[in-house]
Amino acid sequence: MKTISTNKSHGGIQGVYSHASTACNCDMTFAVFVPPQAAEKPCPVLWYLSGLTCTHANVMDKGEYREAAAKHGVIIVCPDTSPRGDNVPDDKDSWQFGSGAGFYVDATQEPWRKNYRMYSYITLELPRLIDENFNADMSRQSIFGHSMGGHGALTIALKNPDRFKSCSAFAPITQPSTADWSSGAMARYLGEDKDGWRTYDACNLIEDGAVFSPILVDQGTADNFLEEGTRPQLLEDACKGKNIDLTLRMQDGYDHSYFFISSFMGEHIDWHAKHLKN
Amino acid sequence: MKTISTNKSHGGIQGVYSHASTACNCDMTFAVFVPPQAAEKPCPVLWYLSGLTCTHANVMDKGEYREAAAKHGVIIVCPDTSPRGDNVPDDKDSWQFGSGAGFYVDATQEPWRKNYRMYSYITLELPRLIDENFNADMSRQSIFGHSMGGHGALTIALKNPDRFKSCSAFAPITQPSTADWSSGAMARYLGEDKDGWRTYDACNLIEDGAVFSPILVDQGTADNFLEEGTRPQLLEDACKGKNIDLTLRMQDGYDHSYFFISSFMGEHIDWHAKHLKN
Repeated sequence: MKTISTNKSHGGIQGVYSHASTACNCDMTFAVFVPPQAAEKPCPVLWYLSGLTCTHANVMDKGEYREAAAKHGVIIVCPDTSPRGDNVPDDKDSWQFGSGAGFYVDATQEPWRKNYRMYSYITLELPRLIDENFNADMSRQSIFGHSMGGHGALTIALKNPDRFKSCSAFAPITQPSTADWSSGAMARYLGEDKDGWRTYDACNLIEDGAVFSPILVDQGTADNFLEEGTRPQLLEDACKGKNIDLTLRMQDGYDHSYFFISSFMGEHIDWHAKHLKN
Repeated sequence: MKTISTNKSHGGIQGVYSHASTACNCDMTFAVFVPPQAAEKPCPVLWYLSGLTCTHANVMDKGEYREAAAKHGVIIVCPDTSPRGDNVPDDKDSWQFGSGAGFYVDATQEPWRKNYRMYSYITLELPRLIDENFNADMSRQSIFGHSMGGHGALTIALKNPDRFKSCSAFAPITQPSTADWSSGAMARYLGEDKDGWRTYDACNLIEDGAVFSPILVDQGTADNFLEEGTRPQLLEDACKGKNIDLTLRMQDGYDHSYFFISSFMGEHIDWHAKHLKN
C-alpha cells in the first residue's frame, strides 16, 4: 500500500492510498479517514460507496463526514467506483458504464471480467488491506453509499448480513435490473440472462430471501432520478412482510447532489455509530 | 443578477449567481448560502474571501460551512478571487498573479487597473447586490477568509471597522507587502512605490492607526507557507499595544488546505454568530 497524501482534519487524518489490486488487476486508489480515537484503540469501520462518475475524492471533498466520524471514533473508508487505467477496458462514451460505473458487481462477460470485479474488491480484498494497515476493529463494520453506491451498500449488506451492523443509503438505485441508468450496465457486465442479475439487485435479493436490518434510506423529493432511477417505493414494497427494519425518509426539496448527501451525512453517521457501539 | 444554480442543503439554499460587474468590467460569479431563517426575517451576512487559485466554488464544495450557518441563521457570501474572462488581462504562467489572484486590491497600473478592482467589488458593488437580492440585514455583517482571502478579510475589516462586527482568518497572509508570494503581485497591481501598498497590508494598516476588534486567527503548525507566507507573529507584533482584541490560535499538525479550514469552520461561524446577534 502506497500513501498518496495525508492531511490532518477534524483531529484525525484524512489519507489517500493506492495499491496493486489483485481483484481488479490494476492499481486502485481509496481514501480513509482515521479518527483521533484510533491512536488509543481499534475503531469500527464505516464503508462509503460512491455513485456514478465518482472517484474516492468526491465524497472526501464534499461529503462532510469527518466531523461526525471524529466525534464518534469511526474509520471511514471511501473506495473508488471502478477499476481504472490504460490497461483497463472502458466505454468512454458512457458515464453509466466502465470507468466510474463499476456497479459493485463481479463482471462475467468479456472484456470486462478481468478488471470489473468491484464486488470482490469491496468485500474481500480491500477489507484485508484495511485490517492490515489501520487500527480497525473489523468485528464492527457498517456500510452506506449514494445512488449506485447506495445500491452497492444495500446489496453487499444483504449478501453479508453477519459482517455489517447497519446499512444506510442516500437515494439508492433500489432495483438496478430494471432502472434506466443501470440495466444496460447489468447486461454488459453480467450477460443477457437476467437470472444472473438477481444477486446484484436489492429488491430481487429480498424477494429471494435475503434479510438485513436495520436499513435507513434518505431520498430527496426534488431528485431528478426519483421516478426512473432510484424508486425507493420498490424497496419499501420488497421489504413488506419480510423481517427487515427499513426506515425510508422522503426529504422535501432535496436533489441528487452532494448538497443533499452532506445535509444528512451527520445523521447517518450518528445512526451507524449507535449500531457500531461495542 | 442571473441564477446559475440553486440546491437545497442543510435546510437552506446554496445558490450560485453571476452578474455584469461595473467594478471589474466583466461578468462575475459568486455563491450565496441562504439559511432557512431567511424565509422569516432578515439574516446577518458573513463574507468569506477565498485564497489563491480559488473561485467561489472551492469553499462552497469543501468548506463545510452550511451546517453552522443554518444553525445560526447566517447568510454566507463567497465571491470569486479575481475578475475573469477573455477580455480580462492575465498572466497564465503565474498562480500568484492575475486570474485567481486579485489580492482584494484596486489595481492602479496598466493593463490591470480596468478589471482588477476587487477591493471596490467586495466593499461597494457586491454588498449592494446582496442587499437588493437576498433577505439580508446589512446592519449586521462580519468577514473572514483563508490565506490571500484572510489578508482580504483583515484589510477590509481594518479599513471598514464600522461595517463589520467581527473578523477572522484561516492562515492569513499577514504582511503581503513583504511576503514572497504576494509582494510581486503588489508591485504589478500597485506600482513600485511601496507607500501605495500600505493600505492593503494588515500590519502596515495597524501601524498607521487602523483599529478593528475582535479578530480571530487560526494557523496550522504544519502549514508549508507558515515561515515565508503567512507569518502570524507579524500580526501579533503589530497588534501589541494597540486597542485590538486579537486571538491567535496555533493549531498543531494542520496544513494550509481545506482539510484544515473545514476543521475549524464551525468554530469560526459560532464565534461570528455570537458577534452578529442583535
